[in-house]
Amino acid sequence: MNNNRITSLIEKMTVHEKISQLIQLATPFYEGAANGGQITGPMQELGIQKEDVINSGSVLGASGAKEVRSIQEAHLKENRLGIPLLMMADIVHGYKTIFPVPLAIGCSWDLEDAEKSAEIAAKEASVSGVHVTFAPMVDLVRDPRWGRVMESTGEDPFLNSEFARAFVRGFQGNDLSNETDRVAACVKHFAAYGAAEGGRDYNTVDMSERQLRESYLPAYKAALDEGCEMVMTAFNTVDGIPATGNKRLMRDMLREEMGFNGVLISDWGAVKEQIPHGVARDEKEAAEKAIQAGVDIEMMTSCYAHHLQSLIEEGKVEEKTVDEAVYRILELKEKLGLFENPYRGADEEREKEIVLSETHREAAYELAVKSSVLLKNDGILPLNKEKKIALIGPFAKSGDILGPWSWLGSKDEAVTLFDGISKKVSSENLLVEKGCNVETGSEELFNKAISQAKKADVIVLALGEDSEMSGEAGCRADIRLPEIQLELISKMKELGKPVAFVLFNGRPLDLTGIEGQADAILEAWYPGTEGGNAVADLLFGDRNPSGKLTMSFPHTVGQVPVYYNNYNTGRPKDAPDAQIRYVSQYLDIPNEPLYPFGHGLSYTNYQYSELNLSSNTMTTDQSLNVSVNVTNSGDITGDEIVQLYVRDMAGEVVRPLKELKAFKKVTLAPGETKTVEFTLTEEQLRYHHVDLTFSSDAGEFTVFVGGSSRDVLSAEFELTK
Amino acid sequence: MNNNRITSLIEKMTVHEKISQLIQLATPFYEGAANGGQITGPMQELGIQKEDVINSGSVLGASGAKEVRSIQEAHLKENRLGIPLLMMADIVHGYKTIFPVPLAIGCSWDLEDAEKSAEIAAKEASVSGVHVTFAPMVDLVRDPRWGRVMESTGEDPFLNSEFARAFVRGFQGNDLSNETDRVAACVKHFAAYGAAEGGRDYNTVDMSERQLRESYLPAYKAALDEGCEMVMTAFNTVDGIPATGNKRLMRDMLREEMGFNGVLISDWGAVKEQIPHGVARDEKEAAEKAIQAGVDIEMMTSCYAHHLQSLIEEGKVEEKTVDEAVYRILELKEKLGLFENPYRGADEEREKEIVLSETHREAAYELAVKSSVLLKNDGILPLNKEKKIALIGPFAKSGDILGPWSWLGSKDEAVTLFDGISKKVSSENLLVEKGCNVETGSEELFNKAISQAKKADVIVLALGEDSEMSGEAGCRADIRLPEIQLELISKMKELGKPVAFVLFNGRPLDLTGIEGQADAILEAWYPGTEGGNAVADLLFGDRNPSGKLTMSFPHTVGQVPVYYNNYNTGRPKDAPDAQIRYVSQYLDIPNEPLYPFGHGLSYTNYQYSELNLSSNTMTTDQSLNVSVNVTNSGDITGDEIVQLYVRDMAGEVVRPLKELKAFKKVTLAPGETKTVEFTLTEEQLRYHHVDLTFSSDAGEFTVFVGGSSRDVLSAEFELTK
Repeated sequence: MNNNRITSLIEKMTVHEKISQLIQLATPFYEGAANGGQITGPMQELGIQKEDVINSGSVLGASGAKEVRSIQEAHLKENRLGIPLLMMADIVHGYKTIFPVPLAIGCSWDLEDAEKSAEIAAKEASVSGVHVTFAPMVDLVRDPRWGRVMESTGEDPFLNSEFARAFVRGFQGNDLSNETDRVAACVKHFAAYGAAEGGRDYNTVDMSERQLRESYLPAYKAALDEGCEMVMTAFNTVDGIPATGNKRLMRDMLREEMGFNGVLISDWGAVKEQIPHGVARDEKEAAEKAIQAGVDIEMMTSCYAHHLQSLIEEGKVEEKTVDEAVYRILELKEKLGLFENPYRGADEEREKEIVLSETHREAAYELAVKSSVLLKNDGILPLNKEKKIALIGPFAKSGDILGPWSWLGSKDEAVTLFDGISKKVSSENLLVEKGCNVETGSEELFNKAISQAKKADVIVLALGEDSEMSGEAGCRADIRLPEIQLELISKMKELGKPVAFVLFNGRPLDLTGIEGQADAILEAWYPGTEGGNAVADLLFGDRNPSGKLTMSFPHTVGQVPVYYNNYNTGRPKDAPDAQIRYVSQYLDIPNEPLYPFGHGLSYTNYQYSELNLSSNTMTTDQSLNVSVNVTNSGDITGDEIVQLYVRDMAGEVVRPLKELKAFKKVTLAPGETKTVEFTLTEEQLRYHHVDLTFSSDAGEFTVFVGGSSRDVLSAEFELTK
Repeated sequence: MNNNRITSLIEKMTVHEKISQLIQLATPFYEGAANGGQITGPMQELGIQKEDVINSGSVLGASGAKEVRSIQEAHLKENRLGIPLLMMADIVHGYKTIFPVPLAIGCSWDLEDAEKSAEIAAKEASVSGVHVTFAPMVDLVRDPRWGRVMESTGEDPFLNSEFARAFVRGFQGNDLSNETDRVAACVKHFAAYGAAEGGRDYNTVDMSERQLRESYLPAYKAALDEGCEMVMTAFNTVDGIPATGNKRLMRDMLREEMGFNGVLISDWGAVKEQIPHGVARDEKEAAEKAIQAGVDIEMMTSCYAHHLQSLIEEGKVEEKTVDEAVYRILELKEKLGLFENPYRGADEEREKEIVLSETHREAAYELAVKSSVLLKNDGILPLNKEKKIALIGPFAKSGDILGPWSWLGSKDEAVTLFDGISKKVSSENLLVEKGCNVETGSEELFNKAISQAKKADVIVLALGEDSEMSGEAGCRADIRLPEIQLELISKMKELGKPVAFVLFNGRPLDLTGIEGQADAILEAWYPGTEGGNAVADLLFGDRNPSGKLTMSFPHTVGQVPVYYNNYNTGRPKDAPDAQIRYVSQYLDIPNEPLYPFGHGLSYTNYQYSELNLSSNTMTTDQSLNVSVNVTNSGDITGDEIVQLYVRDMAGEVVRPLKELKAFKKVTLAPGETKTVEFTLTEEQLRYHHVDLTFSSDAGEFTVFVGGSSRDVLSAEFELTK
């Protein structure tokens, strides 16, 4: 605490004023809000007094330059020391210009475009009065039943870390105090929220500390290394203790080890949720555990407001602990320049100009193109604009393609697939029918679709999950398409015409029984505001698909969790001397996922050859150059994502079969060959040993390079020490 | 090492002789075996020399008094110091008299009968020359995809511990040296083999040490506390290290903490499997890691035989370490009286008399009756002997009802369901047809079944999995009945007659789509040699079902893992103030399993009332008496398993929603009421705290008593300290 302005401000504050800084309340609590501080319903039950609101430190979910200015203005009139409010909101994949969901952005493997998407989101949010976004979410995910996988960039710690950095750069820029077009980022959910048991949201997380450190922590750490200002706690337990009251996790690992000095905020209600978790008897104990664990801001419950004062008086919590929390909050306010200009970027005029601007929509379009993954293509894509196309399915004309966590995005602003295709083909060549709703249907809807489809040369089925079926609390035990859509597929397939699926959904799906019925599958995820334009361009070959999966598609839900960076076991199925029965396998399906991490097709073909290492040994001082030739052997230009994996052949503890260590995107003209080069260093070969120390071992390694985690060339080298 | 005879014997041994004691080879290696030591095929690849065999310490899979005597005799002629061989084999749920699979035995909740089953298995095995059985398997299981759940008693640490003790008592008796009718037990698989990821056998196990200690270790510990002589390592990793080379697990936890001084044996090939696991570069390193971890016997690979000598010479392994292993092995031989009588119980005459005796079959019958669980009954059971019954299904006349791990059991000796029913009803009242095979079928088979079923008043469908579909390496991603059987069900259901399912299988099944089609479901598991008699008696009400599930039946495979003793989360679905969406749930199925732990119906009804606690406070010194009245309100006599659960309302770490702490089986005549009493002590309320210390906390507890984990009465008490 070496900032004089802040320390002297804290000295002037009463204990009540200090504690109130730690409270975060939703917009309706505030005088200046549209509803004028009329608290009703469940909010009333929080027992928050006017005095608490007047002294509170931050606002949840405020947006729109006008309202935000009005709230701040009213607040400053009443707040004794004139401490401005921090405005925080969930700007996850766009403010009003909605980008693809993060899982889709992950599939672009495009860090620049990802950064740009965050920059644009920050720009729109900032001009609308937002100071902090609750993003990026960087939870590693391996279970597609969990609804929030759409909010993560996938199953790989390294790739997630790279995206974590890109998003933080995009949101925050270089200097928050000088760039009012940026917002502070808040990485979430610390820690391991993605490992909810059974893929059921908020459920218990249990794993070894080794697994936590190896797979789950790196992406949070990467965000912090990039200067991320805030951290949000996870709802789940970590080692039996809810993250929000977990002192070892927050004080020892986050603050001490990772050196995080910024503001730690609870997730919505998570301080109080220690009571149902069964580790706090009441709100008072919940408050005590959270503040002792280092949680600075309590979001949307009132344990701090009601009990911190008496906890201090009783000597259970030191006033110093509260002072430190207040310091961090005020420091962030200062960093954002709020003491100089409490309204910061909020500007009604610029808001109209910037939000949903053409430039922003173009960026959203570009990322949607790059995020879609061509999972399968038996040659029917790209479509011919001169042929008759039947566009069938609940997502043919649906604007519900923004995905969860796009609260300010409007479905009406979204370009539907029909809109997109309509711009490309003549109306007589485009027949469109719903066929069924997402989860319901009728014979009539089926029949209409059949009669249209009969007239067509090719059927495009726009299928998927509505946005309520994933996202927070959107967990499914059955992750196939809804039954009615399976029926629609079978009815369309009966017509004997080529059928392409376009999927709009928030998770890897179980395609049991339907994968074989599709002649092509384009995974569009929730592609955002410009989705229809992007998908149409891909379907007709005006753009060439380049996305690659960052989360495995399981064969069936009964294979979950399935991910590429798993371990070999003692009885690998593919060993040369493997027995038929006594190997690690399922009797009914392969061990490998249907579509693995890194998989994604293109309208051209890439050939990999001449994988070369600069040496067959590496030392601590001398890195290794890895080069490979990639040739576009097809007849259109394309972007290929070249992936480099490593396997440590023998470790002190078991090592993954493959670990992504680097990747590059290259553009190749037809017939063109490029030599793609990577540098591999000893640092990239480190892992957590038996005693959890992080280092590398001398020994044999295999390096793999290819266009997916399954399809690779390989070479060996030795690390000598 | 304070046994003079053994230490002086070790002093006389060469290093090669010592090392050879640590080798375990299969029967065919030995001169005295039926094939006379002709080593061919994969066994040759082990590179085992005649000298190794002559000095080896134990034999895997020898059985039959004649052959065992012959092997031992030939061995003693050649072995320089006259050290007898230990004969070990997998006698899991019976030798030739096959009892229900352990998961079924678990469902009996009958510790006395479980003990008796082990005693009988020991008797048959011992007289056939076996000294050690690789049982009990006490791995806690939560994932029905895993094939070996049939070998465990289920998902509860306390119940598994009680069964672990019962089996050890049954196998070992009170004094191994005086009772040649007993065998030494070997508890397995240390540790946590049951938690294989994705339910795929041999796969990675990852969990916190807290979870390991809380749920997985207790049953192994219980077996050791009961005096279990041996321990077998697990195939899986524990904290990233294969159990077989895991020093912390074996030296620190098993030997140091749990005080185990007996013989630790690797599972089949597990020493060498450290190579594919990727923690040993070669056999030599594998040998070093295993011996350092404290593995005394290497089963079926030759890392010790080939490399221990040079490891000693190079100073990487102390000779003392090998001496200690040899000591433990020789000590077990002495305990078994083998130095006095190397043939021990092996007796061809008694073998004929005892094995598969009427008494033993009766015990198998009794346990099969008690192990079957009546999952559902809309009133069609028990069947009326005067009505026409169609017995349809692949298990109608199948002897494949012994289950996996019954290698000496003969399907021809098994009483099929048809055999059992035939004894009870006239032949004109019993129509029988296969309908389909387990996984295949034909229209012809369907039609035959339909035409028989049409003539009947009631249809009994004998369905299930063949025994290869579970057991070791018998893992399934789809745990429904095979497709053809689902078709058979639907064809039978179309006839509009009452349909009862009898299920023969090795795991909780996913009954999606068929549970509603059954008017009754009797889960017979693999009921063993007397299965048909037991199930027939249950179907016709000559015996009243009393089994209760010890492993949950999931709603669908997408709900796995699902178990009763889970945690509350911060957003429980059933909280009074729960939101509609933002709670821990699946959108498509309930959180609870279809049939929970403890569930099982009877042909009568039990009413629970007047749950009383002797006090509303408990202290460390003063236990609590819990009593409940149980009334048989139906009109036949029955056995009810009364279950007592506890919930610690607030802990330092999260506590399970319910934990089984006690149970009693009571027999109630129609109209009879019994008061069932339990004593609850502070000791039963202990758990592992943040720092893993094991103690109880003062505070509120809830006690639940009822006939299943779902259906309970409850009362509160406080522990004061």
